[in-house]
Amino acid sequence: MNGSYEDAGVSLAAAESVVDRLRAAADSTRTPAVVGGLGGFAGLYALDDERLLAASTDGVGTKLVLARRAGRLRDAGRDLAAHCVNDVLTTGAEPLFFLDYVAAHRLDLEQVAELVEGAADVCREAGCALLGGETAEMPGVYRDEELDFAGTCVGVVARGALVDGSRVADGDVVLGLPSSGLHANGFTLVRRLVGDGEFDPDLLLAPTRLYLDDVRRLRAACDVRALAHVTGGGIPGNVARVLPSGLGAVVDPEAWERPPVFRWLAGQGVAEDEQRRVFNLGIGYCAIVPPGDASNTVLLADAGARVIGRVEEGVEGVVFADAG
Amino acid sequence: MNGSYEDAGVSLAAAESVVDRLRAAADSTRTPAVVGGLGGFAGLYALDDERLLAASTDGVGTKLVLARRAGRLRDAGRDLAAHCVNDVLTTGAEPLFFLDYVAAHRLDLEQVAELVEGAADVCREAGCALLGGETAEMPGVYRDEELDFAGTCVGVVARGALVDGSRVADGDVVLGLPSSGLHANGFTLVRRLVGDGEFDPDLLLAPTRLYLDDVRRLRAACDVRALAHVTGGGIPGNVARVLPSGLGAVVDPEAWERPPVFRWLAGQGVAEDEQRRVFNLGIGYCAIVPPGDASNTVLLADAGARVIGRVEEGVEGVVFADAG
Repeated sequence: MNGSYEDAGVSLAAAESVVDRLRAAADSTRTPAVVGGLGGFAGLYALDDERLLAASTDGVGTKLVLARRAGRLRDAGRDLAAHCVNDVLTTGAEPLFFLDYVAAHRLDLEQVAELVEGAADVCREAGCALLGGETAEMPGVYRDEELDFAGTCVGVVARGALVDGSRVADGDVVLGLPSSGLHANGFTLVRRLVGDGEFDPDLLLAPTRLYLDDVRRLRAACDVRALAHVTGGGIPGNVARVLPSGLGAVVDPEAWERPPVFRWLAGQGVAEDEQRRVFNLGIGYCAIVPPGDASNTVLLADAGARVIGRVEEGVEGVVFADAG
Repeated sequence: MNGSYEDAGVSLAAAESVVDRLRAAADSTRTPAVVGGLGGFAGLYALDDERLLAASTDGVGTKLVLARRAGRLRDAGRDLAAHCVNDVLTTGAEPLFFLDYVAAHRLDLEQVAELVEGAADVCREAGCALLGGETAEMPGVYRDEELDFAGTCVGVVARGALVDGSRVADGDVVLGLPSSGLHANGFTLVRRLVGDGEFDPDLLLAPTRLYLDDVRRLRAACDVRALAHVTGGGIPGNVARVLPSGLGAVVDPEAWERPPVFRWLAGQGVAEDEQRRVFNLGIGYCAIVPPGDASNTVLLADAGARVIGRVEEGVEGVVFADAG
């Protein structure tokens, strides 16, 4: 259960204390088939001795508001499905199916269809069946023009192919895969910057990249020991979720070129610190591999990956190399 | 993808046309593993030659608004999990795990915890693991005090145990299982009746009954050929979803005693016709069995079931015996 950030009315402290109580509720339902705890990018459920199901539920968040204003709900649909599939991928699973949930004050046919069609676009690319969904009109719950879009992806992974971070070792290399832009994170802050004014939808709303092919290519070529989807919490918050205790990582913020939207954020007065804590900075997915596997730069380039950091014993969490 | 009803601002026509476009989107993602089409209570996905996964996403709907006003969000959490598990059960599946999604203008720790704890109560009873979830603050999307709660349940069924209505035959018997009250359907209308006034939460908000044990007992004793979860659309709308083409059913509306809330609805001026179209009338789940299996009344009583109707060739859809 991801927390969110404190800007623009999103309270992180409350989210943290909710997590403890939610964790206790979830623990009370635990069965022997549940593998690992909450806090991963996807929940794991042992189907039998050989296979695990991986499942993740997520929403598009307030990116939807700007997408609706810009007439880009189909892209927001892509965001949702890609986000959920990317979460499931972190376990090494292949996506099987996806279900969605659209709710609004009043359902607008065109809007609902665009969202679901966008999600279906990504599902087709991912070989993931759109298996069902729910549409709900809830007058009085949503604001007049607003709607929400959430979804659940379920995938499957052989036990032997499970990626869970447990084998990550001191000296391993952090690879970064480029994002298309902001993906679907940090939009409560972006909306505050945009206000009621005009904005460039190409700059701000580029849909979330699907990392399925990248991850497949990387896994075919490397011993991928951990995978992190860079969402709310940025690179440090999300890479930290897959490191074994006792290990941290140092990331070089100069190791890649940031997409133009991050210059726009800086121009709007969003400090570098804040950008690092909230946004993906241009790296939407990370893989941790042994140093030997990171030396084949041709192979990495083919998978779209570049070295952005290193796992280090004695480092607390994930820090940037230039941090004071 | 369930539509909803036309009262109190919920437009059925729009929901119907959405369904066509959503169906096309889903069809475009179809893989050989998908079994059946949209429109069932749960989507089916072939995991291998022996087993199918069944999955359903749903929300609590506007019952949440009254639950919040009455301080009964834990019951609303029960509603959501029971609703999703009941949907999955219609395929003959056993529930495996559940994921939830809570979103609000601003997350209230206590409210989120109550919702998830209520869902966890039902998950424990169902042996269904609460595997994960998402909490989202979406300022500007939800009204100030409002929130939404949706969830997804995934279950598994052996191919040989699949319940899909295909074997339903002329002369089969419709069994009804009692509801606890309104469950989570028809609340946009109920809210209009209640307005801003006081209401009796015991009467209106009794949480959705979980039918897992009932269905298990019935299946152990009978050849259960179809299972229908009575949600929006009432008994006719939902039983019709599991009948093979060419078969209808006649239901005797006097075959069971309705819970007190239906007298309350009548007293509020909700016509019998409207009640039949929107509400469960006291029957929250239906099973269709061969006539011989319905003759063992002791056995049926043990499963909490009673005969409420009969499958008939030449009947169009599902009608009430006293219908003009």
